[in-house]
Amino acid sequence: MSIRIGILGYGNLGRGVECAVRQNPDMELKAVFTRRNPEHVKILTETACVCPVSEAPDWKDRLDVLILCGGSATDLPMQTPEYAKLFNVIDSFDTHAKIPEHFANVDAAAKENSKVAIISVGWDPGMFSLNRMYANAILPQGKDYTFWGRGVSQGHSDAVRRIAGVKDARQYTIPVDSALAAVRAGENPVLSTRQKHTRECFVVTEEGADKTRIEEEIQSMPNYFADYDTTVHFISEEELQRDHSGIPHGGLVLRSGVTGWEQENRHLIEYSLKLDSNPEFTASVITAYARAAYRLSHEGVSGCKTVFDIAPALLSAKSGEELRASLL
Amino acid sequence: MSIRIGILGYGNLGRGVECAVRQNPDMELKAVFTRRNPEHVKILTETACVCPVSEAPDWKDRLDVLILCGGSATDLPMQTPEYAKLFNVIDSFDTHAKIPEHFANVDAAAKENSKVAIISVGWDPGMFSLNRMYANAILPQGKDYTFWGRGVSQGHSDAVRRIAGVKDARQYTIPVDSALAAVRAGENPVLSTRQKHTRECFVVTEEGADKTRIEEEIQSMPNYFADYDTTVHFISEEELQRDHSGIPHGGLVLRSGVTGWEQENRHLIEYSLKLDSNPEFTASVITAYARAAYRLSHEGVSGCKTVFDIAPALLSAKSGEELRASLL
Repeated sequence: MSIRIGILGYGNLGRGVECAVRQNPDMELKAVFTRRNPEHVKILTETACVCPVSEAPDWKDRLDVLILCGGSATDLPMQTPEYAKLFNVIDSFDTHAKIPEHFANVDAAAKENSKVAIISVGWDPGMFSLNRMYANAILPQGKDYTFWGRGVSQGHSDAVRRIAGVKDARQYTIPVDSALAAVRAGENPVLSTRQKHTRECFVVTEEGADKTRIEEEIQSMPNYFADYDTTVHFISEEELQRDHSGIPHGGLVLRSGVTGWEQENRHLIEYSLKLDSNPEFTASVITAYARAAYRLSHEGVSGCKTVFDIAPALLSAKSGEELRASLL
Repeated sequence: MSIRIGILGYGNLGRGVECAVRQNPDMELKAVFTRRNPEHVKILTETACVCPVSEAPDWKDRLDVLILCGGSATDLPMQTPEYAKLFNVIDSFDTHAKIPEHFANVDAAAKENSKVAIISVGWDPGMFSLNRMYANAILPQGKDYTFWGRGVSQGHSDAVRRIAGVKDARQYTIPVDSALAAVRAGENPVLSTRQKHTRECFVVTEEGADKTRIEEEIQSMPNYFADYDTTVHFISEEELQRDHSGIPHGGLVLRSGVTGWEQENRHLIEYSLKLDSNPEFTASVITAYARAAYRLSHEGVSGCKTVFDIAPALLSAKSGEELRASLL
């Protein structure tokens, strides 16, 4: 019998989960829940229903895992605890500073209702967190580095779009090569924000807009750009569509550490991702963890979990025997 | 109270475990068991005993985890099932083809005696296996690549040393740059053995030895060198000591996969290690898993496990709260 999956929220992430479920033969997408009018939401899976979100509770016994594809700012802090009362759930909550609070809320709801919830699943938080954790456990004496990019930051793109005279914009975050080289060389550099990443903006302006003012507003914007070296390119709407319509991302997690009685030996652990589609990769990670939630729930486990708590084998469709024979 | 560690076998790996235990304040090395005369074995930890291996059973209730540092060819197939009757144990069994059989033997012994055994811990098998497994679960449609090196292969170095007229030798395994570049470019190449790695030998000969014959014998040696492009350098004993006395190693695990309804998006997951000391890094991984064995045993778990079965958080000295706040 397949693992019956529901998706709540059908944006880029929800659509990515739909695609990922199709790649996993032991899973079946049963329903997509939307806050929009279901008649206006076209999904790709012919055998799945599109339902108004108000009907989700009716599916309580017809889904094994509900995947929450809303945003971290306002959706997930409400949705994950709410739906953890009815379903095993997965979310990609990524507001790092608020994870402890979110964990506590979700844990209480899930435990009370004997459900499994896995939060903050994706690549950062998610696979990057896992790699930071493994590397720290293996090399207790060392230094961590995380670089993001080259990739599109939605938050920074939105910030540029809010500037008067900007019609559309795309912002790329880019690791600084020399910083990365210093880390790889085992130099354990102390890197400022400016030394780690640069930012590159591609901006389409309204007719007659003052480009000099827009460039200055971008480069001096506190939190978003002021602490970085930012390059601004003004391009046409056609160029933006043609060259910048993808949502690539990626990055690197490194730990540089020492071993030996006198700490005489150096080691470098590096994990990197190069992703054509940030939401589809995030969705693929989430979908693998949906399998783990399903299995844990069958084992009688309940409560909130993160990637740190999940034994790797639970993610794989293969049995323990197959994994040991083929991948160990 | 500290986790009380014992080491069985005091070669490079055992010494590496000793160094790693020192880096983990929640652990204490209590005893090193040796087949040699204990009076001739000098260890670094002043507070630990050196005991003949025959006395190991007497330590049954004085150690939380016994780390087996013998070889995979003859030591571990006997030792791990034997000591899993008395102790929670960890080994680094690395004969990939025999892992299922070893697992079964160790599992039976450990379960019967309510002990936890974690086998095949290190970096390959070990961290490389984990990365293959995670990447396969996340990207079900894709292709795996593992490259080893640049690093010293003990087995290949030994094979060269067995040739008549060779006094000493060191062999390096080296990934082929162009193969790695093709994988990173998402070309999904089909690579022959020769296309993936080259081999480089540094050889010290006996006086008057026939170097041409030695070079030919190396390059044509079946299994070890015949399928590779092998370069042979003849050097002096002093040069070998000066330039090749380390035991560096490393390598890369890559998975290149696709997502999307039409498989239209490519992704590359890459994990790499650059290690000054192969045995010390292996020992550091093993030591982290000793913590997991200790905790699982306290939870009442028993039987044989591999890295696939161990929730990542069990490796870390930090609590779940600390991990979520600092590394997620």
